[in-house]
Amino acid sequence: MILPSLDDIKSAHRRISGYIHHTPVLTSTQINRITGAELFFKCENFQKVGAFKYRGAMNAVLQLGSDEKRKGVVTHSSGNHAAALALAAGTAGIKATVVMPSNAPGVKVKAVKGYGAEIIFCEPNQAAREKTTREIIERTGAVLVHPYDNFNVICGQGTAAVEMLEDLPSLEIIVAPVGGGGLLSGTSTAAKGISPGIKVFGAEPLNANDAWKSFTTGILHPSVSPRTIADGLLTSLSELTFAVIRKNVDGIFTVTEESIIESMRLIWERMKIIAEPSSAVALAVVMENPEVFRGRKTGIILSGGNVQLDSLPFSKSSGTGQ
Amino acid sequence: MILPSLDDIKSAHRRISGYIHHTPVLTSTQINRITGAELFFKCENFQKVGAFKYRGAMNAVLQLGSDEKRKGVVTHSSGNHAAALALAAGTAGIKATVVMPSNAPGVKVKAVKGYGAEIIFCEPNQAAREKTTREIIERTGAVLVHPYDNFNVICGQGTAAVEMLEDLPSLEIIVAPVGGGGLLSGTSTAAKGISPGIKVFGAEPLNANDAWKSFTTGILHPSVSPRTIADGLLTSLSELTFAVIRKNVDGIFTVTEESIIESMRLIWERMKIIAEPSSAVALAVVMENPEVFRGRKTGIILSGGNVQLDSLPFSKSSGTGQ
Repeated sequence: MILPSLDDIKSAHRRISGYIHHTPVLTSTQINRITGAELFFKCENFQKVGAFKYRGAMNAVLQLGSDEKRKGVVTHSSGNHAAALALAAGTAGIKATVVMPSNAPGVKVKAVKGYGAEIIFCEPNQAAREKTTREIIERTGAVLVHPYDNFNVICGQGTAAVEMLEDLPSLEIIVAPVGGGGLLSGTSTAAKGISPGIKVFGAEPLNANDAWKSFTTGILHPSVSPRTIADGLLTSLSELTFAVIRKNVDGIFTVTEESIIESMRLIWERMKIIAEPSSAVALAVVMENPEVFRGRKTGIILSGGNVQLDSLPFSKSSGTGQ
Repeated sequence: MILPSLDDIKSAHRRISGYIHHTPVLTSTQINRITGAELFFKCENFQKVGAFKYRGAMNAVLQLGSDEKRKGVVTHSSGNHAAALALAAGTAGIKATVVMPSNAPGVKVKAVKGYGAEIIFCEPNQAAREKTTREIIERTGAVLVHPYDNFNVICGQGTAAVEMLEDLPSLEIIVAPVGGGGLLSGTSTAAKGISPGIKVFGAEPLNANDAWKSFTTGILHPSVSPRTIADGLLTSLSELTFAVIRKNVDGIFTVTEESIIESMRLIWERMKIIAEPSSAVALAVVMENPEVFRGRKTGIILSGGNVQLDSLPFSKSSGTGQ
């Protein structure tokens, strides 16, 4: 198995840099005071389609051959990768097909359609998704762009860390959320390549702790019935992302649902920016483990900002004001 | 009556620049496409205490004489000005007293207290507020820093427009919300001073349209029983702000509650930042009057980002996705 290298990620960055936003890094005096750490938030919620996923999708699309371009791309996803691939394909002028479960939220369907992709609905289970995707590939020859089990996608996701370490070479720690492991694989490969002494940690919901289990036991565990508000982190590692993470990541921390919601609220209230639950998981790790981060220059990858504004988790009891 | 000049505002800017954030200006390709205008959002939601009010409060506090500093400052407010004056006074090492209605939301009380001000509660009506404030002034000699009927406060509020026109000298229009008129007075004085050909418009909820009435009739109208989600715009113009606005403002537009909520949602969903209803009023003016703004470089002052996350106005029906 060939793992991505820093050079692969730097090539990806040159390839996609005319298409992506070089997102800003924000800080919050108040959150630093609360955590005792020195935090730097890489705002991928401001990335196109509202998530880092656009980096990987764009990198994958730009590396298609002309024959592949003619046949188009396909993926199965109901989340940010679907929107990212739809926009990346549209930008490159090629056809995208997205397989979505029949119960996908209307707003997500609308977003993917709005970016110009064709949507094929299937029964809402993993077997139906994969079968439908296979049928499309057999029928059309479309190229599968998997959300994370894809070398080029991982390289694209790693470009956020490249930007962050160019802006902040003295970072001591980077924390990134882990679901399927594309972001954490790219981030850790880039970070260790640029700053060999840096620590890279994965952040995972306790209620979807398959990456933690796999990392701790050395045996790949699937994600079984995960139940978490961090809906971008339900997926399992692949052989490829597991291999990268074992090589480059220093530890995986799990956090409770309460911490995720509290951290999300802190970001919204103190920083006045919108981060989705999956990206608040990284701050939750800092909140739950202050001794690890105290006084350390720590990069937090805020992976995305796509939320359903009509169903937010904030209750009356936990208000903390301005 | 002496009205503030551009020079007064520039002096204010030099005075407060070591204390405030020079806030960023953000743009949104998607909102430009929706409105047909070229919009530039001055993000005072990222200002200290989450609102432009800190500029005026800081400018007022920094101009106190040493005797006044010893006696401290007082104001009556349950909104952003209360938090702003509390933090400004605390930063300058002087005492602040804030008169708040007994039914003020707990989170607002907590925020003002957190910044170190003393809070005196009164009955929730205008007469009680003024009486209580007068009593404090008589007893302690504290200096009243009115939320907007104050020369130094107006000069401070105008500094956001100075920064914006330094960053973007080719702006053709600026839109600012109008409640008591401090922000609109400062903004219009600065903008007309720097760019005499620029148009400056006030943005006001239809349900609190006293400034529009006053501007249109030439007679100062009080705000009578306003009912709007834009809770920062309930107040009436003063003689001073009315005089400045009549001199420097080109028009006041009123907008419906539905437009305010829709505009707020657009900012949250497309820009991934948190703007409070009062600041969404300015975008609502553009949404309701596209012919005025089409193709024009328009500055929007996003006045603040303090919201109650547990009582948001977004309903299931109006979702538009990512």
